[in-house]
Amino acid sequence: MALEGVRALVFDVFGTVVDWRGGLVREAEAFLARHLGSGAQAQAFADAWYRTYPTAIGEVRRGERPFTRLDALLREYLDRILPDFGLDPAKMSAEELDDLSFAWRRLPPWPDSVAGLERLKRGYVIAPVSNANIALMLEMSKRGRLPWDAILGAEIAQAYKTSPECYLRNVETLGLRPEQVCLVAAHNMDLAAARGCGLKTAYVLRPQEFGEAPRPIPPDQDWELVADDFADLAQKLGL
Amino acid sequence: MALEGVRALVFDVFGTVVDWRGGLVREAEAFLARHLGSGAQAQAFADAWYRTYPTAIGEVRRGERPFTRLDALLREYLDRILPDFGLDPAKMSAEELDDLSFAWRRLPPWPDSVAGLERLKRGYVIAPVSNANIALMLEMSKRGRLPWDAILGAEIAQAYKTSPECYLRNVETLGLRPEQVCLVAAHNMDLAAARGCGLKTAYVLRPQEFGEAPRPIPPDQDWELVADDFADLAQKLGL
Repeated sequence: MALEGVRALVFDVFGTVVDWRGGLVREAEAFLARHLGSGAQAQAFADAWYRTYPTAIGEVRRGERPFTRLDALLREYLDRILPDFGLDPAKMSAEELDDLSFAWRRLPPWPDSVAGLERLKRGYVIAPVSNANIALMLEMSKRGRLPWDAILGAEIAQAYKTSPECYLRNVETLGLRPEQVCLVAAHNMDLAAARGCGLKTAYVLRPQEFGEAPRPIPPDQDWELVADDFADLAQKLGL
Repeated sequence: MALEGVRALVFDVFGTVVDWRGGLVREAEAFLARHLGSGAQAQAFADAWYRTYPTAIGEVRRGERPFTRLDALLREYLDRILPDFGLDPAKMSAEELDDLSFAWRRLPPWPDSVAGLERLKRGYVIAPVSNANIALMLEMSKRGRLPWDAILGAEIAQAYKTSPECYLRNVETLGLRPEQVCLVAAHNMDLAAARGCGLKTAYVLRPQEFGEAPRPIPPDQDWELVADDFADLAQKLGL
């Protein structure tokens, strides 16, 4: 068995469980159409907003600001990108911007995510270890019917990935040792950081993460498992 | 509607969702029979252990010791009660005592808990706000099939009930205001503390909590709802 001794599977979420780009583009289209008369820039808008996310958490990771929930960071960075699209946040209703920012809470699962998690749940404790805060994950999971056993993540650790504290404090919260936990992610960097903390690793290919044209990113280490999607992962784990 | 505006139901667990006494007595019987040749003192043992629990968390609440997970407190207080039953923990295997201490992770749900929670989950976010730590709740919930949306509680708040911080930090983690959250509990004291923080309250009668002979404890305030069990609570909420 590739994951001998593993008791819990913890999941990256943005890109691995849900389609952040598809979800943001859809909501940005409606928003931009309302304000600019056209949603043509929705993809650029989604990508610009997503690119601010490592910047925002980087400030926390480097200790330049105290731990701040992702909901608040995303809202703050939304205000910063609006001017690049000719929009002035000061002239828009806070309610509408809050709602747009909650697009992250409404990101849709990949087609195989829910059924795959249901299968994986039969054999393992399953929980997100995402940079998303608990309220964000909770609304996303309730809407998308993601059947987590618990919602873990950066907020539990008060530290963002890829800081070692984030992985290690979540493992400790599970009452397990690092080698009893496997991170499932579509990103080599996340898996490398988890492996550095002693966790097992499973790479799931999500070739459509950055757009509709598939762009597979190959595994760059010998992760314990490599799977095409969650159904394939469950199959490889005998579930 | 009794709970107009409420989005999340948070639950006390020991006594409200699971039968702590029935579970502890059953495991204590086997343990005592092994060591004393008889399980006759199992009820006294379960009650003695349970009575140490407010003492242990009281030390944290009063700031006499740093926040310590409940798993560790229960294990520590197990050592302290064993001599009262003629047993010396220093002469027993740590593995066996660890396992006995995990009896708390194996407490059985009341017969109506799982089906009731499934119904309540259709209308509300449901999560425990117990003094139990996340790993304890996770194992209990996985074994007992308790279908939580998330596992919250004292560990999230780093404060034990009935400290206001415990209720308020969990409400904040949910991204809600206190009046959007209702505590469901079988204990007047817990509900009174939650009400003091602005939460709504639902009292569930658990007349068998302290033994098989029913001993109903009447509500001592006009809680927003009073229910016979979780099925009755779901019914009263139109679910």
